[in-house]
Amino acid sequence: MTGIVYGVGVGPGDPELVTLKAARLIRSADLIAYPAPEEGPSFARQIAAPHIPSDMTELPIRMNIGDGRFPKDDVYDEAAETIIGAVLTGKQVTVLCEGDPFFYGSFMYLFARLASRCRVEVVPGVSSLMACATATRGALAARNDVLTVIPAPLPEEDLRRRLAEAEAAAIIKVGRHFAKVRKVLTELKLADRTRYVEHATLASQRVLPLHEVAADAAPYFSMLLVHRRGDAWK
Amino acid sequence: MTGIVYGVGVGPGDPELVTLKAARLIRSADLIAYPAPEEGPSFARQIAAPHIPSDMTELPIRMNIGDGRFPKDDVYDEAAETIIGAVLTGKQVTVLCEGDPFFYGSFMYLFARLASRCRVEVVPGVSSLMACATATRGALAARNDVLTVIPAPLPEEDLRRRLAEAEAAAIIKVGRHFAKVRKVLTELKLADRTRYVEHATLASQRVLPLHEVAADAAPYFSMLLVHRRGDAWK
Repeated sequence: MTGIVYGVGVGPGDPELVTLKAARLIRSADLIAYPAPEEGPSFARQIAAPHIPSDMTELPIRMNIGDGRFPKDDVYDEAAETIIGAVLTGKQVTVLCEGDPFFYGSFMYLFARLASRCRVEVVPGVSSLMACATATRGALAARNDVLTVIPAPLPEEDLRRRLAEAEAAAIIKVGRHFAKVRKVLTELKLADRTRYVEHATLASQRVLPLHEVAADAAPYFSMLLVHRRGDAWK
Repeated sequence: MTGIVYGVGVGPGDPELVTLKAARLIRSADLIAYPAPEEGPSFARQIAAPHIPSDMTELPIRMNIGDGRFPKDDVYDEAAETIIGAVLTGKQVTVLCEGDPFFYGSFMYLFARLASRCRVEVVPGVSSLMACATATRGALAARNDVLTVIPAPLPEEDLRRRLAEAEAAAIIKVGRHFAKVRKVLTELKLADRTRYVEHATLASQRVLPLHEVAADAAPYFSMLLVHRRGDAWK
């Protein structure tokens, strides 16, 4: 038996930002698995679609995503059992992960269930962090800058403390926390040094100064990039 | 005239971690440019080598790298003039960047010289940050962790302050600063929660607990990953 699981990052959205290795491991899979919302299409699958053979066997892992809550354990328990069942009969299973598998990725929940029971290899991907910096046409961080990645769901006082100390910051998982984050950035006089990015690398990509963003409209996979030094977007 | 410059991330080292887009823009270039040491081969070119046609025109941008100092301006001035000269005659110039162009990349120095004078597009790549996390087989950051990226050349007191506050940290540009960083991590009782990674994704990749690393042997492109919570490498 030579079954194996590959957790592959498929990048931030543009199907051409899939790596050669990820494309190969998607084509050669016996089964592909991917996170998906409770209803509707999977973003990870959409990114990988040009590389998926038409006769592929697929396992959508359906869960509540995008609301900042963490999915229930039984979703991962069940998916892990199906995947291990396939691996134990010698299959290659490729799990598609948006962006990079180990950068705030849900793949870690599957990895924790699989790694002690079968061979698992992880393939890094282009992260939304780098894709959003590219979208703003400014360096994410340079020279000896400290870069802080801050999840927006944190309490307001934690956001304020972290941002007050940050030289460069990426605020992730913005979504319904947008109004809170903008309030903190404005209080810290960082609003003019912040760029909003949504749907980086997709045709629908938008980059806006903070004050032009409608507070109730930020999708979960939007990001705010902050540079205390003012020269990043010159 | 439809000349253009593409700054493309070629990923952390494994040539198969080049994206489909980067591979295409390397193949279709009239001229490729890349950072190189004053003598010897360019790492960025080595990563891209399988995708470079044998008759390609090449521009190595030779500079002091790897010692933590920043190259002299005239190196970039001269390279920028050569590149602009090619673009103004309608050529496509592809600049190869290790990892991702805008994540502490030297491409920003070229971008600053080119962007106002010709079309420049940037293509994100797989960063060493994600590659090193994959190498440790642990999530770089998860859920609502704050992740701090800290350049090792910072003064010891800055390193101590940043690491004292960090939940998860990636210490980059380690090289000759290794002994200083290990001292700080040990004082903060974070040594057992730190993994050392060098040459991530290459055949020469090494992942070691901090205490097993010889203090004088860390290459410039090595990294330390720190997790305050102890469960990242379980």
